[in-house]
Amino acid sequence: MIAITAEAMSGALAAGRRNMDIFGVAVIAFLTALGGGTVRDILLGNFPVTWTQHPRYIYMTIAGGLVTIVIARFMRHLHQLFLVLDAIGLVAFTVIGCNVAMNLGYDTVVVVMSGITTGIFGGILRDIMCNRTPQVLRHELYASVSLLVALLYLAMLREGVGENITLLAAFSVGLLIRMAAIRWNVSLPVFSYSQARWE
Amino acid sequence: MIAITAEAMSGALAAGRRNMDIFGVAVIAFLTALGGGTVRDILLGNFPVTWTQHPRYIYMTIAGGLVTIVIARFMRHLHQLFLVLDAIGLVAFTVIGCNVAMNLGYDTVVVVMSGITTGIFGGILRDIMCNRTPQVLRHELYASVSLLVALLYLAMLREGVGENITLLAAFSVGLLIRMAAIRWNVSLPVFSYSQARWE
Amino acid sequence: MIAITAEAMSGALAAGRRNMDIFGVAVIAFLTALGGGTVRDILLGNFPVTWTQHPRYIYMTIAGGLVTIVIARFMRHLHQLFLVLDAIGLVAFTVIGCNVAMNLGYDTVVVVMSGITTGIFGGILRDIMCNRTPQVLRHELYASVSLLVALLYLAMLREGVGENITLLAAFSVGLLIRMAAIRWNVSLPVFSYSQARWE
Repeated sequence: MIAITAEAMSGALAAGRRNMDIFGVAVIAFLTALGGGTVRDILLGNFPVTWTQHPRYIYMTIAGGLVTIVIARFMRHLHQLFLVLDAIGLVAFTVIGCNVAMNLGYDTVVVVMSGITTGIFGGILRDIMCNRTPQVLRHELYASVSLLVALLYLAMLREGVGENITLLAAFSVGLLIRMAAIRWNVSLPVFSYSQARWE
Repeated sequence: MIAITAEAMSGALAAGRRNMDIFGVAVIAFLTALGGGTVRDILLGNFPVTWTQHPRYIYMTIAGGLVTIVIARFMRHLHQLFLVLDAIGLVAFTVIGCNVAMNLGYDTVVVVMSGITTGIFGGILRDIMCNRTPQVLRHELYASVSLLVALLYLAMLREGVGENITLLAAFSVGLLIRMAAIRWNVSLPVFSYSQARWE
Repeated sequence: MIAITAEAMSGALAAGRRNMDIFGVAVIAFLTALGGGTVRDILLGNFPVTWTQHPRYIYMTIAGGLVTIVIARFMRHLHQLFLVLDAIGLVAFTVIGCNVAMNLGYDTVVVVMSGITTGIFGGILRDIMCNRTPQVLRHELYASVSLLVALLYLAMLREGVGENITLLAAFSVGLLIRMAAIRWNVSLPVFSYSQARWE
């Protein structure tokens, strides 16, 4: 719930930066919040796609997008809160994505990829629709947090640790690393390649 | 038919603005015309995807794209006609999209989204492939017309109005609003958000 | 194998041009190498998607991407080799794509499109993720080589020519045309359309 709303709001802000109309804001909010799960369901052949069975999610994302238009002027003050919600969303989506692929009996590496896809693909779709290079592939530790959470979650489940403790650990570690990355501006090494295109 | 050809032509023109070769023009024409239905079929798990069963559609879009290259210099004079065809396409795609989801037994809100997806996603794919922010999310009443048509269509069917009258009403209202929006340059309120990226 | 690695490397270089971090490089390498086959599988309703059943492919693309970061500085000297590998990849992907659709019993025109999709869509996804207009729709004979190979392959199979000879012919002709196109800078006619947007 929290995850979906936070993602929808981040989508709405990105749409606002492109001067979209309120319909566009709703579409981008929806894609940002539910796009990751949709791509996952399609890749895993998990039909019907989750949100088509939960109309409530659809209303929530659209409402989240439209509310953002109204409260955008105060967002600066909600900055910290927003970042925490966004990080919670990232971890929650990753764990859900892992579970979906596990229940369908996929190989471990596919389970990890399913978690990451659910976690980060909403943001990627948002950036593609807003015509900019996906930020999650360039910035800070974001996608990497999703990877770490997925690995930790699976390792603990495999060791037979209880579901609750595993979830608690995944959320604590995920939030901690994400917050630390933002606080101290940590990021992965960047690969810069500027040679003229010869291929 | 008309819808598909008009959409293919609009795709070809967008490809021409990016100096694509004739192969690229054919690809963009195809995606613009049949991309909306393809995205809908995939989201709804409606396999096999419609156009794979109707090779005729494929030829039509490619022909539409290539013909556009030849007649592009006269397009300025066909401006009005083209806009009408495009609006007919929007309404026709929306109605078809609603019907596909209804026949698969989806919830009403998913039926509406299926109609809109079929109506506008071809144009969104066209703009993504041509590396620009999707126009249908920014401009005039385009996506909103699709939403209105879908709602009107479903409401009339639910009230037990005959199929023919319902279709007539959907097309009349859809075309009228679309034409009025173009004529008087009506659009939804725009959400502009220009604060520095702090998230 | 060769095809997948060459495509992954081309994806990694494109990611480097956008200053992505090593996670982003891995994602783009994966999408470039396996994106074409993924789009094909989804369009044809061919679930589970191929790479989910072959974790080896996943490791290969990620390894290919990361190795590219290390050897990028020498790529200039490997230029010729890289182009040949890339062309082999294009032909191999096209033939594989045709076979998948044929085995599912699709119409001939869909089989050809399946081959082309597998051949070129990885590069299209790479360019969309890197926020640039897809090069394969603008440049030299690339997509067209894929089309030619698909047509030749199907025609020879239909004539009852043996599988081995057909494959040999497809690779020879495909590589030859591709290399000739690069060497003499051949390309399809380009459609330039610069009129102001009035639609």
